[in-house]
Amino acid sequence: MRLATIRLPEGGTSAARVTGETVTELDFEDVGALLAAGALERARTAEGPRRPLAEVELAPVIPRPGKILCVGLNYRSHILEMGRELPTAPTVFTKYPEALVGPNDPVLLPPESEQADWEGELAVIVGATVRRADWATAEAAIAGYAVLNDVTMRDWQYRTLQWLPGKSFEATTPFGPELVTPDEFSPGAALVTSVDGEEVQRAATDDLVFGPAELIAYLSTVLTLRPGDVIATGTPGGVGHARRPARYLTPGQTLTTTVEGLGTLRNVTVADPGAAGAGDAAPAGAATA
Amino acid sequence: MRLATIRLPEGGTSAARVTGETVTELDFEDVGALLAAGALERARTAEGPRRPLAEVELAPVIPRPGKILCVGLNYRSHILEMGRELPTAPTVFTKYPEALVGPNDPVLLPPESEQADWEGELAVIVGATVRRADWATAEAAIAGYAVLNDVTMRDWQYRTLQWLPGKSFEATTPFGPELVTPDEFSPGAALVTSVDGEEVQRAATDDLVFGPAELIAYLSTVLTLRPGDVIATGTPGGVGHARRPARYLTPGQTLTTTVEGLGTLRNVTVADPGAAGAGDAAPAGAATA
Repeated sequence: MRLATIRLPEGGTSAARVTGETVTELDFEDVGALLAAGALERARTAEGPRRPLAEVELAPVIPRPGKILCVGLNYRSHILEMGRELPTAPTVFTKYPEALVGPNDPVLLPPESEQADWEGELAVIVGATVRRADWATAEAAIAGYAVLNDVTMRDWQYRTLQWLPGKSFEATTPFGPELVTPDEFSPGAALVTSVDGEEVQRAATDDLVFGPAELIAYLSTVLTLRPGDVIATGTPGGVGHARRPARYLTPGQTLTTTVEGLGTLRNVTVADPGAAGAGDAAPAGAATA
Repeated sequence: MRLATIRLPEGGTSAARVTGETVTELDFEDVGALLAAGALERARTAEGPRRPLAEVELAPVIPRPGKILCVGLNYRSHILEMGRELPTAPTVFTKYPEALVGPNDPVLLPPESEQADWEGELAVIVGATVRRADWATAEAAIAGYAVLNDVTMRDWQYRTLQWLPGKSFEATTPFGPELVTPDEFSPGAALVTSVDGEEVQRAATDDLVFGPAELIAYLSTVLTLRPGDVIATGTPGGVGHARRPARYLTPGQTLTTTVEGLGTLRNVTVADPGAAGAGDAAPAGAATA
């Protein structure tokens, strides 16, 4: 089954089941609300108004996750090719829902950064409430998979030891297009990121050091995971910051992120007008103090 | 004005105004909902059922903040005494609402950690929706102040480069007792942390490298801050991990965190029974893989 969050012409959003070229609206505000209500299995057969998929606009598949837990340094072959040892624990950081955009929305490049970079990733969406889950419980807690591009402002990521500010700029992180349930996803699926049609990242999503169930088990040791929580499982080699010369996103590019079987995020980069556009007079000093 | 979130005898919570030894219930589920509704000024005169303060139980003053943004390395005198240079940008990381407990609740020590440590802090509670705020806008966006102890599992904090797992263990972070509006708070107030009555940390809350308004300006450059968001401004010297020999929290201790004029958190440390108590069979391997 494939579920999406669609934007309604009259405003607001609705969860929807995607079947071929048709979407069927379901009686929840978004896929996050559907999961929170424990309605994932019911959604397979629920009825509702139908529309052609081509005519709907997609929101982030979970627009307001309670948590977006991101994992770094998690692709085995990339770690080994860099001459590093495989980690013994996942590197975990956060981004906030404010960072999310829909699968075809613009990605905003903030005027405060000159180093916007791509990070194509497989996202895991939690479907159950779990704490200290064992492996089997963790596996069963996976509602589905989606695609996420953890677009990162490298200058803000590395300004201090902690990466959060570079990871959570508003309207930078495309997420979707759909939640695809585990029965329709093959773990070895190819992840491909392209910029203006040029392939910049390619990996198999089963090359993770810490796979989806292992991440749920680990993270649920720390705190309760809940339906609609999202785990971004990390990006493979090929990011712009590691290239020589380094390469960053500029306005007007098309960033494409695909996971085989899950779908494609297709986002145009747009310069965020920043403080001037926000209508206030925030001086540069306030932003960088 | 002082606002608290009280637990109701019939279940659930209510926002309340605290006046001397009396609380007046206000018509919001908690102080976060009151702020989200823009009702801070109305709360000064609103009427409702009254109870003696001594008879109510306090929840975390904002039980479910949209964001809890924590700042590290922010006390000037402590940084200088360590022989380090003052930072040019705040170090920012996250904890999640699952970590919060009320001002008099037990603090759970998880069986997966042997290094639970204290970090008494001044917390700033956001009262407006701001993005790219200049200094004056940031200052005006402060709804009030509270006390927070950023209890940290050092072994989990330093397991990788990113601190999040050590910072967000469930039911470890007391927060409250009240939101105190800026007109009743003096920026130079003393912050004192004690363990079983022994003072372990003391600082003046105006010794911050990045003060409350500066933090709001900086963070709002990255993403929108909203009413009820919380900024924990960092801890001064005196944490257990930096002592020789190092010293950690053990079950049955009383952790006391006071900011002059804001009140006191008084929390007994309790061993979390962990997986056995959670009723499942999560092996140690799942937790530490």
